[in-house]
Amino acid sequence: MSEFRLIQQYFHRATSKTDLGIGDDAALIRVSQDHQLAISTDMLVAGTHFFQDAAPYDIGWKALAVNVSDMAAMGTQAKWATLTIALPEVNEAWLAEFSKGFFACAEQFNVDLIGGDTTRGPLTISVQIMGEVPTGQAIKRSGAQVGDDIWVSGELGNAALGLAQLQGKVKISEDELTICLNALHTPIPRSALGLALRGIATSCIDISDGLLADLEHILKASSLGATIDLEKVPCIEYFKNNLSNTAIQELLLAGGDDYELCFTAPKTKRETINTLSKQLDLPISNIGAIRLNTGRMDIDLQVNHQNNKIELLKQGFDHFA
Amino acid sequence: MSEFRLIQQYFHRATSKTDLGIGDDAALIRVSQDHQLAISTDMLVAGTHFFQDAAPYDIGWKALAVNVSDMAAMGTQAKWATLTIALPEVNEAWLAEFSKGFFACAEQFNVDLIGGDTTRGPLTISVQIMGEVPTGQAIKRSGAQVGDDIWVSGELGNAALGLAQLQGKVKISEDELTICLNALHTPIPRSALGLALRGIATSCIDISDGLLADLEHILKASSLGATIDLEKVPCIEYFKNNLSNTAIQELLLAGGDDYELCFTAPKTKRETINTLSKQLDLPISNIGAIRLNTGRMDIDLQVNHQNNKIELLKQGFDHFA
Repeated sequence: MSEFRLIQQYFHRATSKTDLGIGDDAALIRVSQDHQLAISTDMLVAGTHFFQDAAPYDIGWKALAVNVSDMAAMGTQAKWATLTIALPEVNEAWLAEFSKGFFACAEQFNVDLIGGDTTRGPLTISVQIMGEVPTGQAIKRSGAQVGDDIWVSGELGNAALGLAQLQGKVKISEDELTICLNALHTPIPRSALGLALRGIATSCIDISDGLLADLEHILKASSLGATIDLEKVPCIEYFKNNLSNTAIQELLLAGGDDYELCFTAPKTKRETINTLSKQLDLPISNIGAIRLNTGRMDIDLQVNHQNNKIELLKQGFDHFA
Repeated sequence: MSEFRLIQQYFHRATSKTDLGIGDDAALIRVSQDHQLAISTDMLVAGTHFFQDAAPYDIGWKALAVNVSDMAAMGTQAKWATLTIALPEVNEAWLAEFSKGFFACAEQFNVDLIGGDTTRGPLTISVQIMGEVPTGQAIKRSGAQVGDDIWVSGELGNAALGLAQLQGKVKISEDELTICLNALHTPIPRSALGLALRGIATSCIDISDGLLADLEHILKASSLGATIDLEKVPCIEYFKNNLSNTAIQELLLAGGDDYELCFTAPKTKRETINTLSKQLDLPISNIGAIRLNTGRMDIDLQVNHQNNKIELLKQGFDHFA
């Protein structure tokens, strides 16, 4: 099968908001007036981001989902994506499933696939996502204010716990395993929440490396500190039952792969946020507060457990550290 | 060295036309009014697109150059890029050189690097390029007309010949080797030509897989046929001296990696194009003409050598065929 037939068969679908899609030297789109274009990109490598033998449907879904998540974190409407992929060989069954998962996510979040590249090589995927936001309204990492509440959506730790189970490091119930593996394999980007947070959140980030690592990005960009309470971090029973165990604390706070949103907002927005939570049928939990950086350290994030500060060694996923 | 310090040190540079660059969940840009945004992307894999031990400066330059070439092919001004890269390890000397080459190209073609991702994995690079073009003025592959001249810029075959020399398949002179290795390692995208062809070229493509394969894209998109004369294809002496040799013909027409532009234009534009050639100090050669597809084949591209049709087995680079 030629490269061109491969693209035609597995990646060329109708678009709904694109002037020129796959098939020329470039795609052409128009950005709405008075809007900025947001662009984000992620690379996923077999063996690092997913198991070599992971279900291709899940890989396809997740490759796009983690990028839609970045758009959500900016309060931005995801609209277009490109996909570059290196394949060790043409395995049509694999491609069909990968494509199915990718486009299932694209359809759910209304994203046009407008371009890309296919090449031979070790299985590596790069997705770039583009979206629009009214000029000036994007939610950045840098806007947190002293006194702001810190919120997280959904539950944290599920994906990391699912992975730990697959690696034989923990033993959880069947029901919890289902939840955890869904979170690991087919995370749902919080797109609707992200859009709804415009004008509410002072800063926002999506949790990919882990709550601590990602909240630290907000603190660094905003030059502030924070204190969070472990007991307030939303999580399933397994975590609640083992909350004093350091290894379990690390899974929850630093395991990563959550794709929930962590954002800050003034206290005056509490009612609005609680209403939003009901409207979206999505838990949104207040886990702590922004304060001044005490000045003793570059990053000042304190985690309390039963009112005592806890120290964690593992800060979050970093490819090279 | 952490992932974040890596990005900061080797990839975070000042931008000149970007609202929000590297450092947040997404970059933010504004597209000029009455312009379309063009987006193109390429993936380069060690061992496929470049030797594992190729000079990192060259890899950096070429990773961006091949993408700027896609913008040129659309008559589009390249403006922004993102870069995702998987690295087997953090080799700072390698990264410093890669970064140097990448930004040398970015500076020459005035491109802002606005985002990306770094991860651990087999050396794989994906660049996405974005540019602007006044709405409706992008040059596509599909506009060729019967009777149009077919033109190519620069010289073809140099990169393929250089590679053939490195592989011990040919023996060329020292001077020619210098030219060929420059073409192979640090191709110059024909950005100025591409922009100047708006309103002149009816179709355009950049030659990456090879003249035949890429011209065929134009023919397929335009539903037309073409005849080209081998003697008119611009090339260095080595090719001219061996033009009857099939293997050499294949290098010239199907070796690929040229990054010259191949475009069509009405005969009435000949003088304009010749003037443009002088202005840009860039050879632009008329190699044949567009005609109707005779209907016998899906793709109807005839190559004449000494007025006789020649048959070539190798059509151009395809990763999977």
